[in-house]
Amino acid sequence: MNIHGTPTRTIRPLPDFAGVEIIDQTLLPHRLEFRPLRTLDDAAEAIAVMRVRGAPLIGVTAAYGLALGLADEAHDATLETGCARLLATRPTAVNLRWALERMQGVLVPLPAAQRRGAAWREAAAIADEDVALNQAIGRHGMALLRACHERRARTVQVMTHCNAGWLATVDWGTALAPIYAAFDAGIPVHVWVSETRPRNQGASLTAWELAQHGVPHTVIADNAAGHLMQHGQVDLVIVGADRVAANGDVANKIGTYMKALAAHDNGVPFHVAVPGPTIDWRLADGTGIPIEERAAAEVTHIPGATEDDGVTSVRLTPPQSAAANPAFDVTPARLVHSIVTERGVCPATAAGLAALYPHGARA
Amino acid sequence: MNIHGTPTRTIRPLPDFAGVEIIDQTLLPHRLEFRPLRTLDDAAEAIAVMRVRGAPLIGVTAAYGLALGLADEAHDATLETGCARLLATRPTAVNLRWALERMQGVLVPLPAAQRRGAAWREAAAIADEDVALNQAIGRHGMALLRACHERRARTVQVMTHCNAGWLATVDWGTALAPIYAAFDAGIPVHVWVSETRPRNQGASLTAWELAQHGVPHTVIADNAAGHLMQHGQVDLVIVGADRVAANGDVANKIGTYMKALAAHDNGVPFHVAVPGPTIDWRLADGTGIPIEERAAAEVTHIPGATEDDGVTSVRLTPPQSAAANPAFDVTPARLVHSIVTERGVCPATAAGLAALYPHGARA
Repeated sequence: MNIHGTPTRTIRPLPDFAGVEIIDQTLLPHRLEFRPLRTLDDAAEAIAVMRVRGAPLIGVTAAYGLALGLADEAHDATLETGCARLLATRPTAVNLRWALERMQGVLVPLPAAQRRGAAWREAAAIADEDVALNQAIGRHGMALLRACHERRARTVQVMTHCNAGWLATVDWGTALAPIYAAFDAGIPVHVWVSETRPRNQGASLTAWELAQHGVPHTVIADNAAGHLMQHGQVDLVIVGADRVAANGDVANKIGTYMKALAAHDNGVPFHVAVPGPTIDWRLADGTGIPIEERAAAEVTHIPGATEDDGVTSVRLTPPQSAAANPAFDVTPARLVHSIVTERGVCPATAAGLAALYPHGARA
Repeated sequence: MNIHGTPTRTIRPLPDFAGVEIIDQTLLPHRLEFRPLRTLDDAAEAIAVMRVRGAPLIGVTAAYGLALGLADEAHDATLETGCARLLATRPTAVNLRWALERMQGVLVPLPAAQRRGAAWREAAAIADEDVALNQAIGRHGMALLRACHERRARTVQVMTHCNAGWLATVDWGTALAPIYAAFDAGIPVHVWVSETRPRNQGASLTAWELAQHGVPHTVIADNAAGHLMQHGQVDLVIVGADRVAANGDVANKIGTYMKALAAHDNGVPFHVAVPGPTIDWRLADGTGIPIEERAAAEVTHIPGATEDDGVTSVRLTPPQSAAANPAFDVTPARLVHSIVTERGVCPATAAGLAALYPHGARA
């Protein structure tokens, strides 16, 4: 996507294998700072403190991080300790494990002297594949926006939740890929960005990347989503997902379920955009998905920009009050209109998903 | 309700008609400051900048404010300009107009020399009546909590939204009155306090007053409400209302509708607690209720406590991003289990309301 008019990826190699450069997302939307990662430890730290976040981007960062940890002669022990160090940063992130296993699968069979170069090539391949998956999601999802525009002959009003955009991936994003594709194709589009308490990824990341690319958008409190749908101000909703069960149940950022309820109550189509690897074929439905309980401080405190453009955290609640912070919820498939994947759009049903992914459904 | 163990009203007269004392609610939950209002202008300012808020408390503050504006000999012109000044502070607040009209109705027929004393007595009567209404709501609503406790034989899990508590009234509150009554009667109760973005009246006011009175509670992001209901962690929801239409449609703080949807989807009873005057018999249903659009800054900025216990406002969004801020929404009666009033509990239907208020329904 564009930053100051220049197409930019969220992660890119520096010349001569000297490192990779990321955007420090903990400073957004208040400061845009590119940050070099020159060692495996730099990469591990960036993942752990969420300078990079979003499952696809975490996986790619770990892959480059492993490459950074390899000397000209990379021995088995170096490979193993490097992978263990990176895996420990966010133990629950599926893409992290997937990317590191893929790297090991390529590197272990090679002679030690060839591993470093191969690691850089493989990390780049993972990054390029992520971009290609998201571009395909964008093409298929754009058709939904185009159809809506042709039917209504006015600006398409899209609502999204959290950040399933460019910043969560290497480029394009998942839920936002169709929006960028439509915008770039000249389809008039406006995005309602729900702020996504408690971590405010909507207000801080989605709003920022849409602004950078020039896509018209308006930030709302999560509470306002239902009211806007009641008043015909939303044509469709598109969100990403952390996991989709084989029957189409969707685990995603907390608050997704309530938006899906409001969409259903008002006849607004609710779409979930994911790449194939996000479908968990071992799960028959969403009831078994574990829901991470995160720190109460994410509810009781919030970071923001001060008048002199510093960034500080303030406390919102009385010190005596406890807070609970379930980070995800499960939206039943009955509330989901369709799943948008790199292979096309299908109903959120076991049959719908199996038709697009016959091999996955059989496994 | 109790502050530091002492029963305290949100507004109380100072000795010798020297003024009234309020809690400056703009500083909560970070600082508890009582503030004297010694003149009509003090009262008008306190209402305008929301040092006092909540429809009932605004009405009572205006009544006392008028009393503060009257000299020993109070002429018609003084009365009239005083009322006009107070009415201009929050032109849409129904209780403000109602309280001032009631004061005028009592004072205008009296000789000028008797008006000052009568004004103080009438303001005190309005305050006492508010307390009595809320206590009656508390008694009727407590029966719902008691029945739930007896059925489940464990702590009753109640969810509320925004602040319809003691701080919005003179004492007890509307939605919180049943909770305080149950707590004081020894019924074990725990309250899920949804923070209520964008103004965070839940996190800042409801959490604070529950903490002061010692009622167990946990603050959550608004987004978490549906997830908790899906997992059986909410027995009932009680909210207040700004206006109830004759058919039971409910206008209340933005986000109420989505909580009602989640409650309905999970079989959780959704109750609305209001005094009779909040029912608008002229409105057949909720579609005609105007929804106030408030300042975007309430979404883009948020006040909080800094580490050194100062209070400051920080910006949450990118400067280029617009924000929208509808302040209320309308929950259709079909999602409301019952209306809890000072006259008892009734279904959220035209017939249910008319049975409790035959005179209102006929008018």
